Amino acid sequence: MSTSPTPVRVALLGCGNVGSALATLVAGQHDEIQLRTGLDITITGIAVRDLSIDRGIDVAPEVFTDDISSLVIADNVDIVIELIGGIEPAKSLILAALAAGKPVITGNKALLAEHGAELYKAAEAGGVDLLFEAAVAGGIPLMRPLRESLLGEPINRVLGIINGTTNYILTQMTENGASYQDALAEAQELGYAEADPTADVEGFDAGAKAAIIATIAFGASVVADDVHHEGISTITKSDIEYAGRNGHVIKLVAVAERLAATDGGPDEIAVRVHPAMVPLSHPLAAVRDSFNAVFIEGGAVGELMLYGRGAGGEPTASAVLGDLIDAAANWRAGTHAYFGPLPVAAIRSIDDLESAYCLTLNVRDETGVLAEVATTFGNHGVSIKSMEQSGLGDEAQIIFITHVAPERDVRATLDELRNLDRVRSVGAVLRVVSGG
Amino acid sequence: MSTSPTPVRVALLGCGNVGSALATLVAGQHDEIQLRTGLDITITGIAVRDLSIDRGIDVAPEVFTDDISSLVIADNVDIVIELIGGIEPAKSLILAALAAGKPVITGNKALLAEHGAELYKAAEAGGVDLLFEAAVAGGIPLMRPLRESLLGEPINRVLGIINGTTNYILTQMTENGASYQDALAEAQELGYAEADPTADVEGFDAGAKAAIIATIAFGASVVADDVHHEGISTITKSDIEYAGRNGHVIKLVAVAERLAATDGGPDEIAVRVHPAMVPLSHPLAAVRDSFNAVFIEGGAVGELMLYGRGAGGEPTASAVLGDLIDAAANWRAGTHAYFGPLPVAAIRSIDDLESAYCLTLNVRDETGVLAEVATTFGNHGVSIKSMEQSGLGDEAQIIFITHVAPERDVRATLDELRNLDRVRSVGAVLRVVSGG
Repeated sequence: MSTSPTPVRVALLGCGNVGSALATLVAGQHDEIQLRTGLDITITGIAVRDLSIDRGIDVAPEVFTDDISSLVIADNVDIVIELIGGIEPAKSLILAALAAGKPVITGNKALLAEHGAELYKAAEAGGVDLLFEAAVAGGIPLMRPLRESLLGEPINRVLGIINGTTNYILTQMTENGASYQDALAEAQELGYAEADPTADVEGFDAGAKAAIIATIAFGASVVADDVHHEGISTITKSDIEYAGRNGHVIKLVAVAERLAATDGGPDEIAVRVHPAMVPLSHPLAAVRDSFNAVFIEGGAVGELMLYGRGAGGEPTASAVLGDLIDAAANWRAGTHAYFGPLPVAAIRSIDDLESAYCLTLNVRDETGVLAEVATTFGNHGVSIKSMEQSGLGDEAQIIFITHVAPERDVRATLDELRNLDRVRSVGAVLRVVSGG
Repeated sequence: MSTSPTPVRVALLGCGNVGSALATLVAGQHDEIQLRTGLDITITGIAVRDLSIDRGIDVAPEVFTDDISSLVIADNVDIVIELIGGIEPAKSLILAALAAGKPVITGNKALLAEHGAELYKAAEAGGVDLLFEAAVAGGIPLMRPLRESLLGEPINRVLGIINGTTNYILTQMTENGASYQDALAEAQELGYAEADPTADVEGFDAGAKAAIIATIAFGASVVADDVHHEGISTITKSDIEYAGRNGHVIKLVAVAERLAATDGGPDEIAVRVHPAMVPLSHPLAAVRDSFNAVFIEGGAVGELMLYGRGAGGEPTASAVLGDLIDAAANWRAGTHAYFGPLPVAAIRSIDDLESAYCLTLNVRDETGVLAEVATTFGNHGVSIKSMEQSGLGDEAQIIFITHVAPERDVRATLDELRNLDRVRSVGAVLRVVSGG
């Protein structure tokens, strides 16, 4: 530790929720950080689109600029933090900063899930850090544990609740008996859900995060398009109640697995996001409201779970600050965190996976319907473990739990069921999570 | 990333449960680690006391030596892993290795809790890493998140279940109605508890870990002697049942807090280990069996929890391997993780803390006993929130929940209660954890 502190000049791109929380946090923790690390970290430039808006933070006016392209490569900037989101211009700006030898910190999950491999290579080529703890699961330390603590761990599976909006909605449905529509409206009122909630409720957001988790956990490049995703908009109160009666809770889970190739080739990676029945005894079942958690199954470490706030200005700013201190210390030492070669992952298709399922059929209340449905399952070799019939007339419903079966056979079963005259519609399709 | 791998030669001191699991893990993961980091890590020396014992691991006989002092400073050793435990010779060996410029990894909680500050200074002086993820909470990534991700976070409090033995015993008592004695005997049979269980059940083990957590979380040196600790041996089935009826579960918790000084001086640190009533809605309540978890309350990040296996050969070896890869990468880059100056912490005494309490009194079943006891509470200004009387004759018992009160007043109350003729004995003294 040198006795005179090392000045670190930071450029911040974007000053919304996270950016303004970060500016406040960096200023407030400045002396403590300097005491503990010898780093004198100051935000010396903030790029915003509109200079006239008061950001409500205690920063001198001359720190703000609307010339973002000049700021990222300015000589008096040592480290760049990208918080503008989206693909462009974020991507070009990050590449410019890395090429200019400046470490970059980003919370941009969409960009990393689509162009991560290119950006990681650019950081490696520039010999500087590209850190992104804030991109997945907000304030929860996840990327650093995966990249460092667990780099040598034979990780088999990662299960995550990584979308706070859907977890809030499902918690309201489970604990207060709310309908999906009412819970969604409440989440929108509280600012947990967007006016157009599609990205959250249909699993796009969780899918992008799952691609990043899989890439870092397994050391092979996975992109958002590799991730099969299903949402929660078809989940009903009766599905939630059925799960509860049977010792489960319904969660939107992201699953990333490493699987031995059937042909002896390199391991295959499977990544998907879908609603699932989680046993109440599983640690993920206790993750309520808008909290996130990531459950890791390793060959040596066993079961791990990392739990906390997955979103919000301050928790996300906390993650960015951790990266900033790390990047600053590395920059001072002239080193950087390493990325492996990140070969493109061999993706196993969802069709080739297997699981136990919980399937809800809305049926006509007529004799023979169960026999016809059961025959359809049998025709596709999908074995039924239990079933429960409820409701009368137009409300009649049958919920099935299957034994473990290949996804492709379950889909074929569902396709045929949809065509049966006495099946009015197929409701929730839930995978059943084992263990816990 | 250089294209030809960097050879890293590792000396392992001790080859018990953790050491042999580590040797197997390092060999098994060698190629994967080399692929992802460019590090060619091999254990080239293992120091053991008795060369004649077969360790059951796939290591060439010439790797073993009984000359431990020569091994730690040998020219053909790049990194030293200390897994022999205890204060000496571990301390001298670690200091010798650091002085010789060799990064050291240790899982030695007793040593760090007593002489941590001296060792951290020696590492800083030698310009090399001293890493110790395995010393606290086994396989759970905790030290690295605290030292890196959360270094800039204003951490207010850390609450941990960091002793697996006591958590196993309390889980058996809670879920299966076992008595303390039966649950302890079962833990001993399963190898979770030692023949002499004192270190675990009286809170010494958790106290040492809490000292390390407080030191790293707050950047100020706390030693084991600073930690007030109480154990679980006085907890009875009726305490557990009472907690359950009132929506709580009893856990042995370690608490480390940062408190503003009353005299305007530097923040004070309070660290203690004691049994506590944890609300069922708190994430720590769901930590069962021998699992560990650490719950962190930060000013920006909010609530975080890190959960996993706190002991066992393989989970602990996983933590050591994470440190080994990190230390090897730093060693290759000629850098090391930084320690702050770690001033000696200003410790706030347990007497000066306050809490709500749950107190069990075993009383004589006579009229007037409640009035006499209530008067005693009142004399010391301790206000009673609720009380429940149960049992008859020699089994008569009163359980009190107090409002938040200073520890010193509660102790004075208990001392006086112990002298009352109609109070046969004071049973469990539990703090009540708020929040969750």
